[in-house]
Amino acid sequence: MDDIGAALAVAISRGEEARGHTSPNPPVGAAILDRHGELVGQGETQPAGGAHAEIRALREAGERAEGGTAVVTLEPCNHKGRTGPCSQALLDAGIDTVYYCQPDPNPLATGGGAFLRDNGVNAECLDVEVEALIPWLTSVRRNRPSVTLKFAQTLDGFTAALDGSSQWITGEQARRHVHVDRARRDAIIVGTGTAIADNPSLTARDGTRELPTQPRRVVIGGRSLAGHAANLHRLGFEQYRGIPDALWQLWDSGARDVLVEGGAQLASGFLEAGLVDHIQAYLAPALLGQGRGVLSEAVGLSIDDAARFRTRTVTRFGDDVLLELTRKD
Amino acid sequence: MDDIGAALAVAISRGEEARGHTSPNPPVGAAILDRHGELVGQGETQPAGGAHAEIRALREAGERAEGGTAVVTLEPCNHKGRTGPCSQALLDAGIDTVYYCQPDPNPLATGGGAFLRDNGVNAECLDVEVEALIPWLTSVRRNRPSVTLKFAQTLDGFTAALDGSSQWITGEQARRHVHVDRARRDAIIVGTGTAIADNPSLTARDGTRELPTQPRRVVIGGRSLAGHAANLHRLGFEQYRGIPDALWQLWDSGARDVLVEGGAQLASGFLEAGLVDHIQAYLAPALLGQGRGVLSEAVGLSIDDAARFRTRTVTRFGDDVLLELTRKD
Ligand SMILES: NC(=O)c1ccc[n+]([C@@H]2O[C@H](COP(=O)([O-])OP(=O)(O)OC[C@H]3O[C@@H](n4cnc5c(N)ncnc54)[C@H](OP(=O)(O)O)[C@@H]3O)[C@@H](O)[C@H]2O)c1
Ligand SMILES: NC(=O)c1ccc[n+]([C@@H]2O[C@H](COP(=O)([O-])OP(=O)(O)OC[C@H]3O[C@@H](n4cnc5c(N)ncnc54)[C@H](OP(=O)(O)O)[C@@H]3O)[C@@H](O)[C@H]2O)c1
Repeated sequence: MDDIGAALAVAISRGEEARGHTSPNPPVGAAILDRHGELVGQGETQPAGGAHAEIRALREAGERAEGGTAVVTLEPCNHKGRTGPCSQALLDAGIDTVYYCQPDPNPLATGGGAFLRDNGVNAECLDVEVEALIPWLTSVRRNRPSVTLKFAQTLDGFTAALDGSSQWITGEQARRHVHVDRARRDAIIVGTGTAIADNPSLTARDGTRELPTQPRRVVIGGRSLAGHAANLHRLGFEQYRGIPDALWQLWDSGARDVLVEGGAQLASGFLEAGLVDHIQAYLAPALLGQGRGVLSEAVGLSIDDAARFRTRTVTRFGDDVLLELTRKD
Repeated sequence: MDDIGAALAVAISRGEEARGHTSPNPPVGAAILDRHGELVGQGETQPAGGAHAEIRALREAGERAEGGTAVVTLEPCNHKGRTGPCSQALLDAGIDTVYYCQPDPNPLATGGGAFLRDNGVNAECLDVEVEALIPWLTSVRRNRPSVTLKFAQTLDGFTAALDGSSQWITGEQARRHVHVDRARRDAIIVGTGTAIADNPSLTARDGTRELPTQPRRVVIGGRSLAGHAANLHRLGFEQYRGIPDALWQLWDSGARDVLVEGGAQLASGFLEAGLVDHIQAYLAPALLGQGRGVLSEAVGLSIDDAARFRTRTVTRFGDDVLLELTRKD
């Protein structure tokens, strides 16, 4: 089982690398062990129209896949999309055993595990949560892009001081992570308020250098940005009048994983509409006492009305802490 | 060195057990290894007037201490207080080597390490931070009790909802930890506002059962509590008009480690006076949008004015997260 564990780690990390490049397909990773347990192939989903993770890994393994084991982060697909079903390819390559982390909930693609078993391959779902697949799985379940609400705040809940200043609440390490994370998303969304007040670039950067993958830049609101938001005009952006409109257009054009970066009014809009699936809160160990809050509206009058989430991960970036939450239902 | 590591763990955990019982003395733990590296004695500081940790551990070890090693969380004291200096006792017992985690900054007690070295004992400071000693070390440095500001809040910084409700922001596990922690403190302080609004008990409980050690119950403010705060009247409490008054009386009567549990006005008072040494923030993964904040006053207008702390520990209690911070200077 040690070989399997190592192959699983490889598959998970290849899937992680694929994030931001694969939508509307999921960022899957795969690893192939030969019959002696040696790692002979690995791969990740290519941009839409390109090969799936299993195909890449099988190609690398060649004949050594025969009698071997495949470890894949998602159930191999069973439909003939642009690339032909992966379950058939695993069968043809003579793979003996397939382990996959999560079943494929997509009604068009599901059934790969059953197909393999029907054809004499051992195929087993490991039921392991895969971080890279969470947004894509959310999107399939919700029939719209997965929405992550992101903000940086002081411990006592302020995203900006009374004078509006918000640079820099968190430190260098947390800010670097924000940019790595942006590159994994299909789109970044802000309200016209933030677009006008902050002239944001909404790009994923390493220092001043732009990372190779960039999310779509999206603004929500009716106001015209003419004469404002020079960076967005320079880089290009999409604007939608409302949240449902934006999410539908994003979904329809292939986005599966979007990040809402504020401001408070837009954040309240998403929350009130029941559209916040995940939260990324970067907390700085600082107190401001007064300032601008994360949300513009009360969720309710009483503590029982609070919008409750479940804590998925807690990560330190120097003195700052990132909390990643997921809705409860 | 493995024996030393194990002895260190024993000494640290004995010191942890002593918290809440030893003030004005520090909660120290000690372990003795015989000349073969076998653990033959351990102990912790007894309530004031009782034996220090080293003496307890030496007593348990008896003659087997000769030629052995002592591991102590704090530099052995060198003054003849109510109990006689520990450095002399270690020398008399024929201990060969003494490791201690932290030097004793107390001008009356320091010099134990040097005394031992002068008398042919190997004595070495390990320079390891000991959680249990942090408040006591703070108090010696500041010449007043160490002050920990504690609050429970939603992620977006609210300690109560708009209607004033605050039970229960955090879950069962976090609340249990609050009570364990209260038993370790010398006093719990609230403002008259909280005393009147909440009728708190300020006791350390396990369910409904009161724990054996209880902190002093302290209220700050000029208003009379006559006709209010029935629980405090039943259990007994001290009241002081202002913060300096309270801290001085607490210090003078032996308190070294006090917890400020609110409300917002008192918290702002401590922060503005530069008297917050540590913060314990219990965060629930919930959003309220509006409500009562941690502080009643702005710390400043701009983000650069924020009161910044350093993050010491991050601990999960189920879905809740405890951040423990310490001031930077
Ligand atoms: N620290 C942080 O993490 C952070 C992040 C982002 C922003 N900020 C700060 O937040 C401030 C801006 O916040 P804000 O609340 O004023 O602006 P905002 O939420 O970015 O924008 C408000 C505008 O967005 C549109 N909008 C919001 N909700 C909508 C909905 N449900 N449907 C349709 N349109 C909607 C409306 O546009 P129209 O009026 O055009 O229709 C509204 O006026 C800035 O000062 C910025 O610095 C801080
Ligand atoms: N979730 C939580 O962690 C938590 C914890 C505690 C309280 N709370 C909530 O907070 C609310 C009470 O907050 P609050 O801000 O009104 O009350 P508070 O801070 O407990 O009490 C205010 C009073 O304390 C005294 N005081 C405060 N600062 C002082 C200073 N620097 N010097 C001298 N006296 C000082 C004053 O008393 P006099 O006017 O008598 O002079 C003042 O009126 C309650 O509703 C409670 O439920 C929540």
